Amino acid sequence: MVLAIAESERVRGTTSPNPPVGCVILDSAGRAVGFGGTQPVGGSHAEVMALKEAGTKAQGGTAVVTLEPCAHYGRTPPCTEALREAGIKHVIHAVSDPNPSAAGGARILEEAGITVESGLLRQEVSRGPLRAWLHYARTGRPHVTWKYAASLDGRIAARDGTSRWISSETSRKEVHDLRAKLDAIIVGTNTVRADDPALTARDAGGMPLARQPLPVVVGMSDLPAGAKLRRTALHLRTHDPDEVLAALADRGVVDVLLEGGATVAGAFLRAGRIDRVLAYVAPALLGDGPAAVLDAGVSTITDAVRLTVEDVTMSGPDLRISAVPQT
Amino acid sequence: MVLAIAESERVRGTTSPNPPVGCVILDSAGRAVGFGGTQPVGGSHAEVMALKEAGTKAQGGTAVVTLEPCAHYGRTPPCTEALREAGIKHVIHAVSDPNPSAAGGARILEEAGITVESGLLRQEVSRGPLRAWLHYARTGRPHVTWKYAASLDGRIAARDGTSRWISSETSRKEVHDLRAKLDAIIVGTNTVRADDPALTARDAGGMPLARQPLPVVVGMSDLPAGAKLRRTALHLRTHDPDEVLAALADRGVVDVLLEGGATVAGAFLRAGRIDRVLAYVAPALLGDGPAAVLDAGVSTITDAVRLTVEDVTMSGPDLRISAVPQT
Repeated sequence: MVLAIAESERVRGTTSPNPPVGCVILDSAGRAVGFGGTQPVGGSHAEVMALKEAGTKAQGGTAVVTLEPCAHYGRTPPCTEALREAGIKHVIHAVSDPNPSAAGGARILEEAGITVESGLLRQEVSRGPLRAWLHYARTGRPHVTWKYAASLDGRIAARDGTSRWISSETSRKEVHDLRAKLDAIIVGTNTVRADDPALTARDAGGMPLARQPLPVVVGMSDLPAGAKLRRTALHLRTHDPDEVLAALADRGVVDVLLEGGATVAGAFLRAGRIDRVLAYVAPALLGDGPAAVLDAGVSTITDAVRLTVEDVTMSGPDLRISAVPQT
Repeated sequence: MVLAIAESERVRGTTSPNPPVGCVILDSAGRAVGFGGTQPVGGSHAEVMALKEAGTKAQGGTAVVTLEPCAHYGRTPPCTEALREAGIKHVIHAVSDPNPSAAGGARILEEAGITVESGLLRQEVSRGPLRAWLHYARTGRPHVTWKYAASLDGRIAARDGTSRWISSETSRKEVHDLRAKLDAIIVGTNTVRADDPALTARDAGGMPLARQPLPVVVGMSDLPAGAKLRRTALHLRTHDPDEVLAALADRGVVDVLLEGGATVAGAFLRAGRIDRVLAYVAPALLGDGPAAVLDAGVSTITDAVRLTVEDVTMSGPDLRISAVPQT
């Protein structure tokens, strides 16, 4: 399953609105003989890719796959069919398919005499490569990660507005790698005016990475004439997070990174439309300067937006905190 | 040495201005036969306490001690003498004594034919129980830990000023336990007016712990007539951190907890008189409300007070971040 997760991560960011699934085929002796990840929309699913590589060695073997194999005719034939035809005897999957039209794969496999095990490394998969897609499958809305970088005392810039760089080079590189795995990046018009960002995913040398997310600007005001995003971005003239997410879902966007600023972050928080907070906290104190979020709709302490910390790691000298809203 | 550190922790907060040292005596076969910690001022040092328990079993044995044994006649005779007389053959200590009047213990022991090893678990001791005292011995100033509790976005209260409770019960209990191990707690007059704190160390049931730190209020204005601290606290009418620390050093204070508010914290930061930052960060977002520190003397990003994270742990649902200023 660890290898299947790696396949899943490899294709992440290239499959939306389909899930980035990973699959490994083991032959009857338990040797890994085929690897596959979901191909871009219209292409083969992970199981079919892995079976292709395995060829006849799949006969009597096991398919290890991050998501329950699909049972429906969509753009491609059902994977349950492909697994059966290849002579697979066992299927082990991490996560069941929450999608009513595709679900039921496990039952169909079992009816074909294939043993099915579910739940292996479920949490790793459901919090990892399939997190955004599972959210999308359950709610119909893209999954929103709000990312910000701030000092230990919660400032995203100094008194004079300078912010380059609060966070370390390591953290900034991590964010560029993350951007390349997502479908869209949202900023507000204030951020465009203040920072004129390109919102591209770049490597350490500043060169654009192969895969680029859709840049999205949210807000009523026009973008400045020379703004980098004026030519590249989708500009959504609304302040309503649900309108933004609906427009993105229509474009096949599943996994969204919200990069600010404080006003847009506040609007998404008030609407309950932030599914994960990713905070890069630099061990520095500023004592003045703008905050990461404005007006989260909280006026007294008992109304605080409470989160649960999922994970804390060091990113160079910075803390990288991943937290999700309490439900 | 781990046992000696435990002895050291046991007496921490009761020995200032002397160091909270721990000592374990091993007999000639390596069995632990005596344990001791530094007694309150005027009482015996750790080595003497441990030798007393060991009695004649110390003959030919080893003394494991967190600090190099002292070699001078102060309020008590030198420990080097006591070790020699008890027939100790080996001394293992974690940290050398930086105090010129007490130092040289290792050399004197060696001249008496005792083998001396230094440096075992040095970092654990010098960052742990002896941290404040080593700072005090080197600089002549009490060691200052600035502690605060804030939300992930750096707010210490909501818009309406409510702050009970931002941090978890676990974190608040930790702070009460910490208070009992320190010599003094500083707050500003603003905090007295706003919160009317008692600054006592209490147990989970709200009962005062046996050992209480000296409460100190810093600032020019008078304390309100009914304030709890009016009867108990030392009120220092100054805004100068160095005057505060000098007055406390005169009273034998070595280890200080600065509990705010934001103005006092700013003054200590600007003066470079914060030796450690202990932040309890609750996984919550407020989007408005007062910040943990005001005016740290930083106007642009390159002047940020940069810290190094020493340690991050979970305290219940909260993050407990310990960081020290970069030198």
